[in-house]
Amino acid sequence: MRILISGFGTVGQGFAEVLMRRRDFFVGRYGKEVSIVCVMDSSTFAKDRAGIPPDDLLERKRTTGKVGTETYADSVEVMDSVDYDLLVEVSPTDIKTGGAGLKNIRHALESGKDVVTVNKGPLALNFCELVTLAKKNGCKFRFEGSVGGAMPIINLCRECLVGENVSSIRGILNGTCNFILSKMDNGQPFEQALKEAQQMGYAETDPTNDVEGYDSACKAVILANSIFGRNVAFSDVSITGITSISGEAISLAASQNMVIRLIGEVSEDRLEVSPRLIPKGHPLSINGTLNVAQIVTDLAGPITVSGRGAGRTETASAILSDLVSVMDDRKERGDRCRNP
Amino acid sequence: MRILISGFGTVGQGFAEVLMRRRDFFVGRYGKEVSIVCVMDSSTFAKDRAGIPPDDLLERKRTTGKVGTETYADSVEVMDSVDYDLLVEVSPTDIKTGGAGLKNIRHALESGKDVVTVNKGPLALNFCELVTLAKKNGCKFRFEGSVGGAMPIINLCRECLVGENVSSIRGILNGTCNFILSKMDNGQPFEQALKEAQQMGYAETDPTNDVEGYDSACKAVILANSIFGRNVAFSDVSITGITSISGEAISLAASQNMVIRLIGEVSEDRLEVSPRLIPKGHPLSINGTLNVAQIVTDLAGPITVSGRGAGRTETASAILSDLVSVMDDRKERGDRCRNP
Repeated sequence: MRILISGFGTVGQGFAEVLMRRRDFFVGRYGKEVSIVCVMDSSTFAKDRAGIPPDDLLERKRTTGKVGTETYADSVEVMDSVDYDLLVEVSPTDIKTGGAGLKNIRHALESGKDVVTVNKGPLALNFCELVTLAKKNGCKFRFEGSVGGAMPIINLCRECLVGENVSSIRGILNGTCNFILSKMDNGQPFEQALKEAQQMGYAETDPTNDVEGYDSACKAVILANSIFGRNVAFSDVSITGITSISGEAISLAASQNMVIRLIGEVSEDRLEVSPRLIPKGHPLSINGTLNVAQIVTDLAGPITVSGRGAGRTETASAILSDLVSVMDDRKERGDRCRNP
Repeated sequence: MRILISGFGTVGQGFAEVLMRRRDFFVGRYGKEVSIVCVMDSSTFAKDRAGIPPDDLLERKRTTGKVGTETYADSVEVMDSVDYDLLVEVSPTDIKTGGAGLKNIRHALESGKDVVTVNKGPLALNFCELVTLAKKNGCKFRFEGSVGGAMPIINLCRECLVGENVSSIRGILNGTCNFILSKMDNGQPFEQALKEAQQMGYAETDPTNDVEGYDSACKAVILANSIFGRNVAFSDVSITGITSISGEAISLAASQNMVIRLIGEVSEDRLEVSPRLIPKGHPLSINGTLNVAQIVTDLAGPITVSGRGAGRTETASAILSDLVSVMDDRKERGDRCRNP
């Protein structure tokens, strides 16, 4: 399995580290290593058909700020110059145009390559085009880490709940908002909670994407398209953020043994992000930066899953999960039995 | 896929109903139906190599109290008289000897048949023997529903978290205890909460198995053996139940913004069921009859999953999940692609 990584920021570097930590796992499971044959960052690239040791890539990035010594003008030309099997697309997301991520994913799928990504922009804007392209060209296309980071949800529905009819998914899809609302539960005003989130590195200097619910909306779109087979985009989501939630509203909720949480809700006919009242002790009433999703099914009833919605290693773990899934589907394991 | 069902109580009947409801699913996914070729209850059996319609079985059980018109003395003789591919073992559990379930599972595996079960007794007593037998004879052996009912945990670890190193699992593995403790949070004394659990049908007349932690301990054993590869049995678990938890202890916990929950903890070197303090808002602080488990992994961090721990259709849904997994592994789908 020869991998091309586009994007070598936090997540790309985290994935390179995870590949090092799981070297023995891949050798044990598939009888061979996964090799990184090319990495692109925003302006440079490194490539070697024999595979580049992840620690060399990490060391060069750390010391020079760049992953490669050669620069490029067009990422597609770099991709076409490399023999690879699977693209890991982790360049910075652009939820207005899809950016370099959309271009790279589209080109890889057009070239018959498998793709694993956590890049929300292309998925929230061009989901159906990309899935259709993948099917047409016989490519695997996976994006577990694009929703909820390390929290398994897309693969959970696909693997563990495959015989279920899912009627709705409701979840906390943005850890920054949940951190702020949890702090407000303890009496902090919104502005102070936001400031603390920024100091902790959870919120960006411009927190609009998080607190206005745009990030949650992207994830709702990805769930609507991937789990419910809908054909929707970012502009179809009804969005209300958390900026107008007052301390009085939080207190009133608490007096009824409830909390206010920013909930994304997706079903056959709903696509919404808005603050909701949740009873304390309910699986969706959790505190802090966790993400959580409740999947309502016809046989099993409600299944709730939570996990870390962000983080270098956590997001890389979702990419690892997708990579293993693709390699299993590609029968990289040959005839060996997975388990009894 | 020809199925033999041993046990036709609540779960067996629930599974027959689920097979009816999912007829189109199986035809769509595998191009053929799943057929029930034999069902045994405690004293009778029905068999037909052409398959028996589930509604005929359910109707006969409902009207006569028995699933068949023929009686048997030895279940093994009935099993040997039938051509089947997979045993669904859902007879009443016996956590002292393993009972009929152990005998049936052992015989099916010795005969080279796949087995799906939710029967905790055989798994808590003879886990390693049965897994070794399955491996030796090339059989699939699955038991998702034996821990947490509809809550996916064993398949979650096996499928979605396959690249992770799991360091511990802590969970609420008994819904009856959690119902009682949730009621005690609201000021009810233990005896009254237990009585309400019995009236609601959550607790049995003799609630020992639940409230003394024995049921949770069986599930802890199954997790220790299946997820951590240990070789432990029921007698290895350190068990403290909930009968000595006072209203004062609950109040004291509440004053610290905590709840008391009965937690099973499993790791390489721990195997314990005992009441623990859990902060409110923590994923393990949930109320009511739900089961929940927090899986701590090295890359993804903590992943928490919750769902209904019992119920006719809910437990049957776990059997369905295992059945689909076995059929996929058996390549019943041929060369058709599962998904892009």
